[in-house]
Amino acid sequence: MDKTQLESCFTAHSGRFIHEWQEFLRFPSVSISDKHQQDCAQCAKWLLAHLAGLGFSTRLIPTASNPLVFAERSGKPDSPTVLFYGHYDVQPEDPVALWKTPPFEPTLINGRLYARGAQDNKGQLFAALKAIETLIMNNALHGTIKILIEGDEETGNMQVLKVLDQERTLLKADLVMAADTGTVSSGAPTITMGLRGIAHMTIVVSGPDHDLHSGVHGGRVPNPAIALCKIVASLHSPDGRVAVNGFYDGIKPPSQEERRLANANPLDPVWYQSVTGVPPVAGEQEFTPVERTGFRPAIDINGLLSGYGGAGSKTIIPASAMAKLSARLVPGQDSGRILKLIAGHLQKQLPAGLKLNITEQGIGGPAFRGNLSSPSVQIASDVLGELSELPTAFLWEGASVPILSYLPQIAGGEAILVGFGSESDNIHAPNESYSIEQFRLGFLYTGLFLSRL
Amino acid sequence: MDKTQLESCFTAHSGRFIHEWQEFLRFPSVSISDKHQQDCAQCAKWLLAHLAGLGFSTRLIPTASNPLVFAERSGKPDSPTVLFYGHYDVQPEDPVALWKTPPFEPTLINGRLYARGAQDNKGQLFAALKAIETLIMNNALHGTIKILIEGDEETGNMQVLKVLDQERTLLKADLVMAADTGTVSSGAPTITMGLRGIAHMTIVVSGPDHDLHSGVHGGRVPNPAIALCKIVASLHSPDGRVAVNGFYDGIKPPSQEERRLANANPLDPVWYQSVTGVPPVAGEQEFTPVERTGFRPAIDINGLLSGYGGAGSKTIIPASAMAKLSARLVPGQDSGRILKLIAGHLQKQLPAGLKLNITEQGIGGPAFRGNLSSPSVQIASDVLGELSELPTAFLWEGASVPILSYLPQIAGGEAILVGFGSESDNIHAPNESYSIEQFRLGFLYTGLFLSRL
Repeated sequence: MDKTQLESCFTAHSGRFIHEWQEFLRFPSVSISDKHQQDCAQCAKWLLAHLAGLGFSTRLIPTASNPLVFAERSGKPDSPTVLFYGHYDVQPEDPVALWKTPPFEPTLINGRLYARGAQDNKGQLFAALKAIETLIMNNALHGTIKILIEGDEETGNMQVLKVLDQERTLLKADLVMAADTGTVSSGAPTITMGLRGIAHMTIVVSGPDHDLHSGVHGGRVPNPAIALCKIVASLHSPDGRVAVNGFYDGIKPPSQEERRLANANPLDPVWYQSVTGVPPVAGEQEFTPVERTGFRPAIDINGLLSGYGGAGSKTIIPASAMAKLSARLVPGQDSGRILKLIAGHLQKQLPAGLKLNITEQGIGGPAFRGNLSSPSVQIASDVLGELSELPTAFLWEGASVPILSYLPQIAGGEAILVGFGSESDNIHAPNESYSIEQFRLGFLYTGLFLSRL
Repeated sequence: MDKTQLESCFTAHSGRFIHEWQEFLRFPSVSISDKHQQDCAQCAKWLLAHLAGLGFSTRLIPTASNPLVFAERSGKPDSPTVLFYGHYDVQPEDPVALWKTPPFEPTLINGRLYARGAQDNKGQLFAALKAIETLIMNNALHGTIKILIEGDEETGNMQVLKVLDQERTLLKADLVMAADTGTVSSGAPTITMGLRGIAHMTIVVSGPDHDLHSGVHGGRVPNPAIALCKIVASLHSPDGRVAVNGFYDGIKPPSQEERRLANANPLDPVWYQSVTGVPPVAGEQEFTPVERTGFRPAIDINGLLSGYGGAGSKTIIPASAMAKLSARLVPGQDSGRILKLIAGHLQKQLPAGLKLNITEQGIGGPAFRGNLSSPSVQIASDVLGELSELPTAFLWEGASVPILSYLPQIAGGEAILVGFGSESDNIHAPNESYSIEQFRLGFLYTGLFLSRL
């Protein structure tokens, strides 16, 4: 189908699309909360029935947590197979008091639908599903379409990967599509060409077997809180680089073209400070802010906890001190090796008389970097060019979507990540929303892209 | 009264003494917590009634915080006036989960009473009060006794000093006594000849206006938790000295005799590790461990709080990070100047893009150093010689009892500090306790000392 045909179909059916989208959003499918397990199951069943109604053969695949929804519709034998990925689970609605409309009663205000999941990922996913439906109804879907919708994306639970690994035949595809990403800050349509990998650990420094009186002992007892600060401070050099020996070894640098395209959408520091509260001034100064998150790894501390944290003062030497550490990784870095390097570095900094324990080590998956010269990227770019007057942006994203790093390996195909999310959608926050216009763009993109394959 | 008489009185009445002591301990008089304000007031009233019952004229002196309990009983005109100081407030009971018995339900196990405040200061204070009661009941108290019991010792709140400063006539005394100190590690009876001063502050590093996604932003956003660690780590040099410029200026060194007496009771490192869990290996290596706490100042971190502290991982860049800092000071250091020096040092270490706020600055008073050649020190030493086969120890204590640094100035008399606390009492920690034997020694010492004046 061409753009005009898809646009007129959208105009004709948008009322029903929104109505069904609202139905989808009414399931409080909060995966992190035990009390919503039934809601997740109901939501999965609803999706399954919906896809069966479009002519897909469907399967509910059980996991240790929420079930996977799988649907398949065979196309012509020599046409490409596309695996479309999405997730039906959502973030918790807390803090509920800050919502202006009920989080699970989707409300349309000034062309935006407000609800938990309105964008992430129910809205983006449903726009794509409605495009697939439209192609089917118009006999315009020629390839084989496989749809995989999981219910544990928001938990960080990687159990689902074990199941996927056993379903390699089922999931085999030439192309993996997903609509779970956003656009650059200018609002230009965006192809996400990279994601970082992630690894994390909990660092515990301990010494005294109970909190000690800081007067009686201060000046001769090694203080775990000070020691923790010392070893955390040692992770970075004054120039902003990670100071762990070997951390940058083997990193696959971006090509000149990748750097050029990344920097074509630089971070506007005024806009950046207005949405985050801070200027993007940290890290490796020889790289631009978009390069630092797109092509360079980073180590962050996500939390600190030791001793007394209340009002006033409690003059103790804490028995222990804890830090949560996460590393974002890029192609060429092995998560397991990085965790070992960091642990070894920390151990070397430990002052005499104290103990260091590294626990809760976790590997969230490798980094992903797409291939700029792939024909599918060219098609996506051409389609996006027709949908906007702004030139298509190429984004190397700092965040991690571990399943999207693994899925191309499992399916044996290339991943093409295009989404229409924006910072103002407030995902993972109160008053999440997605506009009808964003939904329409997602619909048109998916319809056009699949028509051109 | 002599030792034998006091001993038999203790034997006859110890059951009642313990019962009343338990009653005193049941008040959760945690001064740092707003929700315990009523409990502090109730505890003060209970003490007032108790002292009135012993024949004291009593007064509740209001302060901006918890009231002061004051009691006076006139003696013969030419006998010395003693001002006895104590505090009825206690440290918070956190972390409650580590207590083996309820912190405010005093429980007697194997000759030790377990409760918050069991030693510090309710136990030590009450042993002295019971000695004074015994002298009164036996018509053996000849001098004038003034008793001052405050409710803000554990807060570091020095408001009470303003009130005391206005009550100089009321508080006039030849001698200030207090039982809020401990013995050296050998268990030898101990006269505390020195206390350190204290100053504290809360350090808050902030940047992002909300927690940021560590993937999207990690590597370009200055991380408040890492920045806090960096500035805390900068407070000490690798050689263990405080690295704040000017921190050691003007310190009054100990005399040769003071050093000799302090080192006569060296810290046994095996014993030390057995009671604290750590060896005394930190700090200035050119001083012995007893000199480090007795004659040298120190900076400690009492708590850290930032971002996520729960199980597993939450990959955020925290909006802010907080540390609690306290400094222990020695004669020659001015607390206000030290706070300024530290604040200036911290400010210089702050990475670009972040803000530093120093709040809750508090000055807990100057250091105290007693006079070795005073006759009252001789009496105390003689009495202690009768209570133990071990030679009396002279201790320059690392802890601070700010009011005891001021009170001799206000009362116009010398301070004699003898207490029977021991490291195994776990003060300021879960499972605080005090033994009946320690209580008995405090009782006997107070009775004998007052009888000899």
